[in-house]
Amino acid sequence: MIDYRDDDSPRDACGVFGIWGHPHAVVLTHYGLYALQHRGQESAGMAVRDECGRLVLHRGMGLVADVFDAATMSELSGSATLGHVRYSTTGSSALANAQPLKVRMKAKNVALAHNGNLVNAEKIRDQLESEGSIFQTTSDTEVIAHLAARAPGDSMRQNLLRALQQVQGAYGFAALTSNALFAARDPHGIRPLSLGRLENGWVVASETCALDAAGATFIRDVAPGEMLIIDDDGINSVQIDPDNPRTEAFCIFEHIYFARPDSNMGGINVHQARKNMGRLLAQDHPVDADVVTGVPDSSLSAATGYAEETRIPYEMGLVRNRYIGRTFIQPGDELRQKGVRLKLNPLLKVVQNRRVVLVDDSIVRGTTSKTLVRLLREAGAREVHLRISSPPYRHPCYFGIDTSTRGQLIATDRSVDEVQQLIGADSLAYLSGERVVEASGGRLDDFCMACFTGNYCMAMNDANDKLALEVEKG
Amino acid sequence: MIDYRDDDSPRDACGVFGIWGHPHAVVLTHYGLYALQHRGQESAGMAVRDECGRLVLHRGMGLVADVFDAATMSELSGSATLGHVRYSTTGSSALANAQPLKVRMKAKNVALAHNGNLVNAEKIRDQLESEGSIFQTTSDTEVIAHLAARAPGDSMRQNLLRALQQVQGAYGFAALTSNALFAARDPHGIRPLSLGRLENGWVVASETCALDAAGATFIRDVAPGEMLIIDDDGINSVQIDPDNPRTEAFCIFEHIYFARPDSNMGGINVHQARKNMGRLLAQDHPVDADVVTGVPDSSLSAATGYAEETRIPYEMGLVRNRYIGRTFIQPGDELRQKGVRLKLNPLLKVVQNRRVVLVDDSIVRGTTSKTLVRLLREAGAREVHLRISSPPYRHPCYFGIDTSTRGQLIATDRSVDEVQQLIGADSLAYLSGERVVEASGGRLDDFCMACFTGNYCMAMNDANDKLALEVEKG
Amino acid sequence: MIDYRDDDSPRDACGVFGIWGHPHAVVLTHYGLYALQHRGQESAGMAVRDECGRLVLHRGMGLVADVFDAATMSELSGSATLGHVRYSTTGSSALANAQPLKVRMKAKNVALAHNGNLVNAEKIRDQLESEGSIFQTTSDTEVIAHLAARAPGDSMRQNLLRALQQVQGAYGFAALTSNALFAARDPHGIRPLSLGRLENGWVVASETCALDAAGATFIRDVAPGEMLIIDDDGINSVQIDPDNPRTEAFCIFEHIYFARPDSNMGGINVHQARKNMGRLLAQDHPVDADVVTGVPDSSLSAATGYAEETRIPYEMGLVRNRYIGRTFIQPGDELRQKGVRLKLNPLLKVVQNRRVVLVDDSIVRGTTSKTLVRLLREAGAREVHLRISSPPYRHPCYFGIDTSTRGQLIATDRSVDEVQQLIGADSLAYLSGERVVEASGGRLDDFCMACFTGNYCMAMNDANDKLALEVEKG
Amino acid sequence: MIDYRDDDSPRDACGVFGIWGHPHAVVLTHYGLYALQHRGQESAGMAVRDECGRLVLHRGMGLVADVFDAATMSELSGSATLGHVRYSTTGSSALANAQPLKVRMKAKNVALAHNGNLVNAEKIRDQLESEGSIFQTTSDTEVIAHLAARAPGDSMRQNLLRALQQVQGAYGFAALTSNALFAARDPHGIRPLSLGRLENGWVVASETCALDAAGATFIRDVAPGEMLIIDDDGINSVQIDPDNPRTEAFCIFEHIYFARPDSNMGGINVHQARKNMGRLLAQDHPVDADVVTGVPDSSLSAATGYAEETRIPYEMGLVRNRYIGRTFIQPGDELRQKGVRLKLNPLLKVVQNRRVVLVDDSIVRGTTSKTLVRLLREAGAREVHLRISSPPYRHPCYFGIDTSTRGQLIATDRSVDEVQQLIGADSLAYLSGERVVEASGGRLDDFCMACFTGNYCMAMNDANDKLALEVEKG
Repeated sequence: MIDYRDDDSPRDACGVFGIWGHPHAVVLTHYGLYALQHRGQESAGMAVRDECGRLVLHRGMGLVADVFDAATMSELSGSATLGHVRYSTTGSSALANAQPLKVRMKAKNVALAHNGNLVNAEKIRDQLESEGSIFQTTSDTEVIAHLAARAPGDSMRQNLLRALQQVQGAYGFAALTSNALFAARDPHGIRPLSLGRLENGWVVASETCALDAAGATFIRDVAPGEMLIIDDDGINSVQIDPDNPRTEAFCIFEHIYFARPDSNMGGINVHQARKNMGRLLAQDHPVDADVVTGVPDSSLSAATGYAEETRIPYEMGLVRNRYIGRTFIQPGDELRQKGVRLKLNPLLKVVQNRRVVLVDDSIVRGTTSKTLVRLLREAGAREVHLRISSPPYRHPCYFGIDTSTRGQLIATDRSVDEVQQLIGADSLAYLSGERVVEASGGRLDDFCMACFTGNYCMAMNDANDKLALEVEKG
Repeated sequence: MIDYRDDDSPRDACGVFGIWGHPHAVVLTHYGLYALQHRGQESAGMAVRDECGRLVLHRGMGLVADVFDAATMSELSGSATLGHVRYSTTGSSALANAQPLKVRMKAKNVALAHNGNLVNAEKIRDQLESEGSIFQTTSDTEVIAHLAARAPGDSMRQNLLRALQQVQGAYGFAALTSNALFAARDPHGIRPLSLGRLENGWVVASETCALDAAGATFIRDVAPGEMLIIDDDGINSVQIDPDNPRTEAFCIFEHIYFARPDSNMGGINVHQARKNMGRLLAQDHPVDADVVTGVPDSSLSAATGYAEETRIPYEMGLVRNRYIGRTFIQPGDELRQKGVRLKLNPLLKVVQNRRVVLVDDSIVRGTTSKTLVRLLREAGAREVHLRISSPPYRHPCYFGIDTSTRGQLIATDRSVDEVQQLIGADSLAYLSGERVVEASGGRLDDFCMACFTGNYCMAMNDANDKLALEVEKG
Repeated sequence: MIDYRDDDSPRDACGVFGIWGHPHAVVLTHYGLYALQHRGQESAGMAVRDECGRLVLHRGMGLVADVFDAATMSELSGSATLGHVRYSTTGSSALANAQPLKVRMKAKNVALAHNGNLVNAEKIRDQLESEGSIFQTTSDTEVIAHLAARAPGDSMRQNLLRALQQVQGAYGFAALTSNALFAARDPHGIRPLSLGRLENGWVVASETCALDAAGATFIRDVAPGEMLIIDDDGINSVQIDPDNPRTEAFCIFEHIYFARPDSNMGGINVHQARKNMGRLLAQDHPVDADVVTGVPDSSLSAATGYAEETRIPYEMGLVRNRYIGRTFIQPGDELRQKGVRLKLNPLLKVVQNRRVVLVDDSIVRGTTSKTLVRLLREAGAREVHLRISSPPYRHPCYFGIDTSTRGQLIATDRSVDEVQQLIGADSLAYLSGERVVEASGGRLDDFCMACFTGNYCMAMNDANDKLALEVEKG
Repeated sequence: MIDYRDDDSPRDACGVFGIWGHPHAVVLTHYGLYALQHRGQESAGMAVRDECGRLVLHRGMGLVADVFDAATMSELSGSATLGHVRYSTTGSSALANAQPLKVRMKAKNVALAHNGNLVNAEKIRDQLESEGSIFQTTSDTEVIAHLAARAPGDSMRQNLLRALQQVQGAYGFAALTSNALFAARDPHGIRPLSLGRLENGWVVASETCALDAAGATFIRDVAPGEMLIIDDDGINSVQIDPDNPRTEAFCIFEHIYFARPDSNMGGINVHQARKNMGRLLAQDHPVDADVVTGVPDSSLSAATGYAEETRIPYEMGLVRNRYIGRTFIQPGDELRQKGVRLKLNPLLKVVQNRRVVLVDDSIVRGTTSKTLVRLLREAGAREVHLRISSPPYRHPCYFGIDTSTRGQLIATDRSVDEVQQLIGADSLAYLSGERVVEASGGRLDDFCMACFTGNYCMAMNDANDKLALEVEKG
């Protein structure tokens, strides 16, 4: 596909989903992964504990519906599962990095999966290699597995705890053995993870929309720094590192862009948070215009908020082709240029001779915004006012978001005016961090906003810049 | 996929797209078909006139992106094309019915494709068989080919005209030979067909959004009963049946549901027509409520119109999973029930304790509406008021829309009150046909509204009921 | 695959297989087609009369095992079938030419398939087109279908008879309707067709090895010019053209190369005929040597015959890689050269310092022979004596064998000495036509030997040369 | 496929192939693996050192031609490679065990592959797990990787040596880093491994037929207990365990059945060794008969040897269908019975009323032999005398041959007479071990003949019986 939009959007890494204690765990995990598909489209996988207590693993490249086709589904059965969707680098080695990872350690089989990024993974890896470990993937999950395997004693709970105590970074983590399902969230709570109840079973999922898809009732978010141990005796909770309490730092970008609008995070609904952002954006940065339109799909909530607040009619100014797939990419410039309108097509009759407010959730490299402004102008828009429902994106993320590898962040070394010039909009305004947080129903201190501020919740050393370029996400 | 929504929506038949005289015709046809994908997802095909004047045909089951992958695209080249997307019945014989159809007649090769349905196809087929013709498909396109082959003389233009004079029904038709591209629209103009200009070439397409995708400039709609002959000398227009002028009868359902919102039809933009329908619906059938929400994706325009008119906030009450594919269908009732929320998930926080106006474009069998009302109530909606932006759908379509084969139309023998009872909504109201037409910017006499009124623009005999069940659409 | 051998071998066209009246007809047809796979590897197809009397058709590109996988097989059932394997030209249009062909004519469905080639197909096609017929394939089978459709009356038996009376050429033909299975052989009996009994059902097959595979008992060969009509009342036989008796002219190349060694044709076993050819070749063209070796697989029978007769030890001088598939073809000369040994590898230890007799069944273009002689010399053979178990191949075949299209026949304008020079063998000798026939247990007049003699059993007009280049075989 | 023959044949494990220093290494490795395809058909893989010194790995399930299609080949380039073909257990986890294995250890990437089986793998694995290692596959190759990673120092040569010193069993092993290609053979030389020269590069391969396929010149067999280190400076040789010299014990079954007839092993050509076995079998166990026939393909050499020695004519009594693929397996008994003749079909005309000598290379479970004897009798054979070109197979193999897992060895607890009774032959005779060795041109002490004698060349403990059932081969 001529996916120029996605090329310029931040990409979240992964989604995790697990069930303990339900006879239809496999099908419901399929449903859950399908609901998390927006968090990772390159590969999908599921480990299933079958009736004999064995762990059966199936992984593949592609969408959930492709990897888990009818034939595969008919061969999987069990009452406990661990599933994963992943955005990964392309190439023949990609499958090796698909998750869950299944390993044998201390005479036991365990499947592990996570969403996030560890900032000290490379350091640990070097240390482990120097002690004779071999690595078969570049995923952080394997690092956790090695650490657990080298922990003293035979208790999987203790081993995983010991491993998680040694890693630094962001994770929603889960592991499955024949005896239990483990689910943990990093001490800062950077990445999301929720717990749900399913008749006589339990579900953990990166987003609540996956609980809905499985028909589970939301119980609560897993707490920052908490590890749940779920087995046939029920559910237990331990703190990963109780002696080192850390500030909460939930990734604000889940609210701004990543999460599905029907998910709730930290008690607030994502669509509503976005609509609030749009309202506040209208209050802070109004403009005299004829129509408000949003970039589909992620900015529609903010755009309707902006429209309602300003009473400017909300219109569908851009239509997104909903057929997703790898449409033939034509090399030549002329055809590539034409291809831009394949995915997002402006509505002439809506924008012609109109002053248009275009609401988007963020600007990363700026290429998309530039193209959209041009398309709207070509379609006859008299003015194009760009309104962004988040602050200027200026710093790389080390916690599981893939942005910096795809070129220069447009706002890093530029003022808002300079960005506006480059993009060609008649005006440009960003929503402030404070207002984003206000819209999300929290306090400033509850969120990681490092991509806007550069203030990371943990120490970043020199290696991290390099790390950010190479890191494998989960 | 648990595609309960689509199971209950009318399905349009097909999309046609052709280019004459552009060096990148193949790639641009790919773009155009991708833009028409919503009109048919089961098979896709393209005939290409290569440099030697030969017609090369490639067809396959599946989406455009699958059928025309990079390998296939690299093997196709030429400056004239005829493409098609199709909704077809499943089964191993489906490929035989994929279009375009390529045949040899009178020592010449010709590719043919159409969108629509002929009501006298069966009668003609019987007659042709009795004269010694053999049929290899069940598509109406083959009927047209046979008629052209049996027409006197060697002029393809005359032969096609003669064929089209003999058929009755709805069609957007196109044919490609090594010398010309032909494009015709049925005398009533039931199905859409538009003409565009592309540098030094010409484009015909079922919808204008496909002209946009190919970078072509909209010129005009092909007129009802007109056949265009496009060749290296330019463009010619002839009337198919000038002696029998017929009333215009454009399918109103293109505006209500089928067409992409960024397409323009009869001079009006589809999104705007839908938004108008929403506004008029609000005027005619207001209700005291807290939120307005639409069924994604086709009802979003109408829902925002309703919200703006009533000043009730528009909210995203249902989220559609945008990953389309054949997700595993689980047989059991319990899992199927759970699967309902896979595709459309209600937002608890949006609807809880609220009075909800749910706007949809139409009700066919009623099963979807019933499910959505139930889902919204389960999510805590205090009231659910269903507003439909078209009249009760009561009569089968014989002109290319597949509805009647999928069970009883809920409104056929029921009053609006009875439908409301069945669906379980707190109130139900439909937009009248007059108002739909008003919203679409036309006069009542310009549209085919037989599905609402039962008044067909041409004589229907007894056979048609049977026909409607078996007919192959294109 | 670097299939240099096959590139230079004559290719037979197709295989036909049909069953009437057996509950497991579908599986047994799969078995039968698998046994006929050597007669065509590009596409396979099967028409099945299901319990409701409908004809269901499944066709695909590739081997029988690929086209009829477990999923497909599970969907097919019925007690009457018509199957086909085909060698076809490559390209996207190939599937359209796969057989059986299923058409509707005179209000009835019929599936048709054949093995062979009609020499007056083009003439008939022109005539039919001038009368208004359209052609969707380039296969001769469609010509027969058209002729049957235009025959007077409604009796399928009479219609097919009428069609077969009008065509000239070679065919093993079969057709299936809901009421009967038809099987016919051309008046000269050029192509083979046999009849078998299967419990309470009947089987027709191009070779007897397919009867074996289906567990059927051989009854007899279908007679030249005979059409069998098999239905629930039993089996009937009619003569296609009783007033014009024709000489028998069975294709001698079936014995020499095409047929599987375990098939019997005209009462003689193919392996034994070939071994006889080897013996006679030894008698007529002995040579002082150390080892005899054959080109696998088709020449092994003749080589053992040669070895036994001469008492020179038979050795495996060349090993054929039995994994058949489209191995990557490397463009460069050097790598292509290396690739030659991929498929046929000489055994150094067998040929080193030895005088080798290399037995092959035929020489077409000579490229293979030249390569093999070179390979053997490079492996250390002191002398290489080439012995061919058939006469010089000098004339194109118009009856279903694809040779002339792949370049110049080496023997057409050359003496045996000149061929020997070109190929580089120390000596070269061919078996005479008389001796080939003697080995095959027949009389000279019983066989078509036109490829050796140029004496065709029917009149060939100028068009045929062109025809031979373009013709589609079945 | 109804692969009844293979179900009852011993299966070899794997094939290894590597190149150092050739610009077309990737294509030539493809050729080499294709030549080794008979040693493993379930998966194939190749690691390539690209121009930047990185190791790129591509693996997949299926045949070489499928795994390395044109698209894949076009993406691989480099001058050093390590390839592998493997017979593996089925199931979704099979891909994880495909080789080569690529790991990172001591800050370096290395690809490893082997053919054979380690008898102390489980013990080492337990030990390594207790020290904190994690295992991601069940292949012995991973054990070697772990041992190398835990060896002291940073020299890959020393690390691999140290690892190989710790393992016991049979292997042809190879490893590739960015700096060197390593190739080693177990101290007893149980599994084969040969070295070849390729212009300015080097090749190692499990069989010499793969050297031929790559156009390489055979240099010598890798010696038992030798490890070669090949890099840009040339080739070095070290002894794995020079202080513990061991007896040679080359697997006699390579000569009897596994190896391709055009391979040479221990200086003798495999076809010739087999032909010799047939001659000696005729000398030791003559029988008055009319025809000699072999079970294709592996027994043809022995059968011709038997025929030549006895002067009984050699005939093709059974024809093997050379189209290999997963033909539909029909569950029912009747159809399965019919399916037997799909793969091997007896030639009625050859065996009818004849006394037949059927030569086979071995009897494992006896089911195939029983079926073949029955088929020949049904085809009219008056007598069937079974002659086996090896001794009774009585003991499981622990060195890479998969036999014991597929049911009882028929000869384990039975006399020759009893086996004859069970199989239903008129007579049965085996070739003695001494004579097999004589035919193979070696001394009794040079070979591992444990499957016949139960005398294993290394100590087998109780665990091995269990091991033999579970072991993963390479």
